[in-house]
Amino acid sequence: MDTDKKTVRAVLDQVKADGRTALSAPEAKKVCDAYAIPVPKEGLATSADEAVKLAGEIGYPAVLKIVSEDILHKTEAGGVLTGLGDAEAVAKGYDTIIANAKDHKAGADIAGVQVQQMLPPAQEVIVGAVTDPSFGKVVAFGLGGVLVEVLKDVTFRLAPTDRTNAISMIEGIRAAEILRGVRGAKPVDREALVSIIISVSQLVDDFPEISEIDLNPVFARADGATAVDVRMVVDFSPPEAPFRPSQEEILTAMKRIMEPDAVAVIGASAEEGKIGNSVMKNLIDGGYQGEIYPINPRADEILGRKCYKSVKDIEGAIDIAVFAIPAKFVLAALEEVGEKNIAGAIMIPSGFAEIGEVELQREMVAVARKHNVRVMGPNIYGFYYTPKNLCATFCTPYDVVGKVALSSQSGGVGMSIIGFSRSTKMGVSAIVGLGNKSDLDEDDLLTFFEQDDNTDVIVMHVEDLKDGRSFAEVAERVSKKKPVVVLKAGRTAKGARAAASHTAALAGNDQIYDDILRQSGVIRAMSLNDMLQFARGLPKLPTPRGENVLIITGAGGSGVLLSDACVDNGLELMEMPDDLDKAFREFIPPFGAAGNPVDITGGEPPLTYRNTIKLGLEDDRIDALVLGYWHTIVTPPMVFAELLAEVVEECRAKGIRKPVVASLVGDVAVEEASEYLYERGIVAYPYTTELPVVVLGAKYRWARGAGLL
Amino acid sequence: MDTDKKTVRAVLDQVKADGRTALSAPEAKKVCDAYAIPVPKEGLATSADEAVKLAGEIGYPAVLKIVSEDILHKTEAGGVLTGLGDAEAVAKGYDTIIANAKDHKAGADIAGVQVQQMLPPAQEVIVGAVTDPSFGKVVAFGLGGVLVEVLKDVTFRLAPTDRTNAISMIEGIRAAEILRGVRGAKPVDREALVSIIISVSQLVDDFPEISEIDLNPVFARADGATAVDVRMVVDFSPPEAPFRPSQEEILTAMKRIMEPDAVAVIGASAEEGKIGNSVMKNLIDGGYQGEIYPINPRADEILGRKCYKSVKDIEGAIDIAVFAIPAKFVLAALEEVGEKNIAGAIMIPSGFAEIGEVELQREMVAVARKHNVRVMGPNIYGFYYTPKNLCATFCTPYDVVGKVALSSQSGGVGMSIIGFSRSTKMGVSAIVGLGNKSDLDEDDLLTFFEQDDNTDVIVMHVEDLKDGRSFAEVAERVSKKKPVVVLKAGRTAKGARAAASHTAALAGNDQIYDDILRQSGVIRAMSLNDMLQFARGLPKLPTPRGENVLIITGAGGSGVLLSDACVDNGLELMEMPDDLDKAFREFIPPFGAAGNPVDITGGEPPLTYRNTIKLGLEDDRIDALVLGYWHTIVTPPMVFAELLAEVVEECRAKGIRKPVVASLVGDVAVEEASEYLYERGIVAYPYTTELPVVVLGAKYRWARGAGLL
Repeated sequence: MDTDKKTVRAVLDQVKADGRTALSAPEAKKVCDAYAIPVPKEGLATSADEAVKLAGEIGYPAVLKIVSEDILHKTEAGGVLTGLGDAEAVAKGYDTIIANAKDHKAGADIAGVQVQQMLPPAQEVIVGAVTDPSFGKVVAFGLGGVLVEVLKDVTFRLAPTDRTNAISMIEGIRAAEILRGVRGAKPVDREALVSIIISVSQLVDDFPEISEIDLNPVFARADGATAVDVRMVVDFSPPEAPFRPSQEEILTAMKRIMEPDAVAVIGASAEEGKIGNSVMKNLIDGGYQGEIYPINPRADEILGRKCYKSVKDIEGAIDIAVFAIPAKFVLAALEEVGEKNIAGAIMIPSGFAEIGEVELQREMVAVARKHNVRVMGPNIYGFYYTPKNLCATFCTPYDVVGKVALSSQSGGVGMSIIGFSRSTKMGVSAIVGLGNKSDLDEDDLLTFFEQDDNTDVIVMHVEDLKDGRSFAEVAERVSKKKPVVVLKAGRTAKGARAAASHTAALAGNDQIYDDILRQSGVIRAMSLNDMLQFARGLPKLPTPRGENVLIITGAGGSGVLLSDACVDNGLELMEMPDDLDKAFREFIPPFGAAGNPVDITGGEPPLTYRNTIKLGLEDDRIDALVLGYWHTIVTPPMVFAELLAEVVEECRAKGIRKPVVASLVGDVAVEEASEYLYERGIVAYPYTTELPVVVLGAKYRWARGAGLL
Repeated sequence: MDTDKKTVRAVLDQVKADGRTALSAPEAKKVCDAYAIPVPKEGLATSADEAVKLAGEIGYPAVLKIVSEDILHKTEAGGVLTGLGDAEAVAKGYDTIIANAKDHKAGADIAGVQVQQMLPPAQEVIVGAVTDPSFGKVVAFGLGGVLVEVLKDVTFRLAPTDRTNAISMIEGIRAAEILRGVRGAKPVDREALVSIIISVSQLVDDFPEISEIDLNPVFARADGATAVDVRMVVDFSPPEAPFRPSQEEILTAMKRIMEPDAVAVIGASAEEGKIGNSVMKNLIDGGYQGEIYPINPRADEILGRKCYKSVKDIEGAIDIAVFAIPAKFVLAALEEVGEKNIAGAIMIPSGFAEIGEVELQREMVAVARKHNVRVMGPNIYGFYYTPKNLCATFCTPYDVVGKVALSSQSGGVGMSIIGFSRSTKMGVSAIVGLGNKSDLDEDDLLTFFEQDDNTDVIVMHVEDLKDGRSFAEVAERVSKKKPVVVLKAGRTAKGARAAASHTAALAGNDQIYDDILRQSGVIRAMSLNDMLQFARGLPKLPTPRGENVLIITGAGGSGVLLSDACVDNGLELMEMPDDLDKAFREFIPPFGAAGNPVDITGGEPPLTYRNTIKLGLEDDRIDALVLGYWHTIVTPPMVFAELLAEVVEECRAKGIRKPVVASLVGDVAVEEASEYLYERGIVAYPYTTELPVVVLGAKYRWARGAGLL
């Protein structure tokens, strides 16, 4: 893109010198010209005669607009006249606008009147940019006009953005169909919009002091697009840059933290009920095979291990120090941890920012940064890493090894993860508490889990992202390899953002999170229970190879509900080819329904289930199976479960790996059958036709985002 | 409303006589005039001179439109010209349109050209009516224009409708804000729209042969509304009227069916595994105290009861006959059941419409109607009515008495109800299988449960409503007294409706269901599991007295998720008054947060929970409590459960009855604690912050719909 940065710099310097917070319309036009953003032909007139001369050059009809720093809302001030058809009208209009402006605000500093080309009506859209506290510069696109403002149909991306992303914005709004042309209307010039979106995103990236941009409306025609009204707001005091070690530095530290060879427990205790006692016990009972060093100046031995006064007294290297001492003792101990070259401080203690002790937390981080120590927490339960049998936590040990890593910002959610895991025997690779996130956060964890062969799926409970941009960048990379699930809490809390621009007014905080997380390939869980179910289910499901989903059901009623769930979760019910339809019909009663769902009907023996499921697995055109089992005496729940597990296993042995999910409806025996199936890699639930499909839908969303479909 | 039915009748007679399926524009205008629907001033011209004369009377600018039965899409045919400013333009325009029409369709029968007043631009809306296969005449309202067509922002009500309903339509669309005036625009004339909606709804009610109406667009101004384009489609072969006994007749029959004093089992059997054997056993083992008569021509005694060859051989009166014989023997047996004056046939057998035997089912119903026998089914598992210990089913007995009645159209869902009930010890009053719904359907059940003191909540799984209008009418009445929950399966199956009008094109079948069910006060469950949870939870929750919901939480993280859930479920988080805030602060640590949520923080003893919950229950300004418990060693799960149950019980003893729901996050012990609480009337769940709030939200939706809030 050809940009004229010098011009923009000059404009911004002038605005800064004047102590202003917004650009005038002529300034904004200059900036647009410099970044190839089309605006109407126009000029500034300081007299009626000049206005007439300009209008003659630009062409009639003309639009007149007041130019005054003191008048923010031009229309309300009577400062806008449109459709002026000849010289007489323009001359009269000039005088009217000046008079209105003076009436509106006595003593207003009036720079003149902008004379503008009046464009024919077109589809109105909005392109804008805002500065988000977490994500930084983001660019926005939506339909313009009153109706869309009410419906808030707008979408966001990180700035700067590229053509692919810009197209995804234009295609991604709810009313996208309008732009493609409906009722015989011509489609708008998509490339013209793409170009404006890219320019705006580049502009705020090049000039971070531009805090908000509104191009509203942009007239989108079949042969181009023009930004009819432009508003730019500046802020010359940019926020502090976030702390960002390189990916290599992060990984080096994270490997030592998550897979330590030696652990010190600062505040280790022999006294039952103390946190320092629980941590020691969990390390030992959990079966951790590395060195464990209790640190306590008032003990010689704790739980059979030699106790040290300070980490500095220990000869060998130490990777992490688990803190189990009151907040007020943390700084001094952390200095020693730093001097000992320990990679990570697992900061269990509370008493920091969460109770208002912001300064203490700041100091603690400063000490850590000085020594290059990464801090997990404070105010956390600690963490588990099962491949090393490591329970660096005061909670109860957990040892079911599996392929999902979870993190939580809240201790309550962390406890839920542990309880749910235990109850469902869910295998995990890691459970990590992030608490106040004074230092270590989700993108550090992602960087570690990305290369961790013990982890296939990453699941995170997030209340806020300290550095959303960094998270989005890392997540986009990692989610190409492994599913990343995020439960973003605080979705509905309205941001109390002061809205100087339309774009900012439309930028509900959650909308930005939603768009950017999706763009990063993250699967969003909308509830705690969904998050837990995704953690349990996603590692079980093979990645689908295509979009063709087939439902096979023993209960017509389940078939209908499963179809609803498929549509709700964006799954495509395969159109049944004739030969396949015929093949299924050979196995089912004449009054059963082939097509999709395949309804084998309720009274069928195990063989009917077996034959149809086997066909579903073996036929190459089918990519995933959704099964609806109905409890009957002819095929009891465990008989179904065993035959299903067997067929799936047989197919796996032949190299056929397709996602299979099942809904089991019936009497209580369906609970045991579901558990049996889950243990064998089939995502099965009793009493629900939705949940199995919700989990399958999440796997599909991931596979699509990762470009695997 | 002043209507001129004679004029409409004359128009329709002419259309019928001509064998047409739609009204011409002038005819439609006549009908609008007759029902006080404002249309633009206009007239029909058959020459350019006439057109000029008419335009002079109506006023310039003028619109010209071709009038021809042979041209359906006027604009495409070049048959519409707008903004004609003087006599010359109109004269020329007339000739152009006629020429275009002839070009478009050689030999088209052209009645002339409509000369119409050109209205100033205004907010476009659509008012329409369609004939739904289940609900009959429904009226529609939405915003007009291209954008709204894309977004499908439209709402439906049963026709005829009244002012209150019409207002709820205007207020109920997503873009309603537009009509109230945004960005300084004046609000539209709501009463003018109300009047048009009522007129359209009355018109299709008075003249059922009008199958579709489109007023699109209606120009809505600040001072009135005008239907600019009118389209009316007719169908002179109306559908068969549904079978509708009076409410008294239904109730008399339903009481005998649901609370029978004597039951005959047709096809009773001594042979293990036979349906006729299971039914007998369930009746006996279930503890039914009425008479049980086995019917089987080839046995003298079954399970210790005297066996009869026919119901006609029995001396005493019989209320229901449970059929457990093959379909082919049903007609003959049903004749005898009718002759014996039995109120209900519980038609378990399959082999009817569900396998294509539509005619056999029709004959079966005809026999039943002849004898005034009501038929439940066929193709069902039977039914349970626990207050009578009645298990008239081949499934396993169920005996936990409670206050919720459930019905299902599908056997699989019915089995899920039984399994889930057993697993959660859910008390039920009835579980009813409706199967093919050849006769008895949901509105018959509603009529019974309405007056049944053993039932407080009614929950129904519905695939289709044979007579949606009747259901809506009964549900509207019943839901004022008791919550009615409906899981409508087949939500996402697109109706293959031929769309002759815009209204019909917008009338996705589910949108009509959704709007009309809501209007009837029905709570819609969107998933099988939600339906089951509502069944379990709603009877436990007292009806809230006001909208003020307070969250008290021991985990800040849960507080955020619970707040999200409240917003998602339409609950209002109470603004905390200063004195109440202060009162809560006295019980919680200084770094805890009052406000809403009240965050008591994680390390607190049982007393903190007790004090804050007690305050929440006792303060009159708080209407419902949402609790977030976090598992700690200081307050373990069962300690929390016991203290909560105790406080709630103490308050109940003092006459304080408020809904209390709880989310328990923590290790597995929270499961037992949740069960303990549920049994004591507190809707509590482990590992989820959403489900307790979803159930509370459903109770609120019901209370609002019933006018109790």
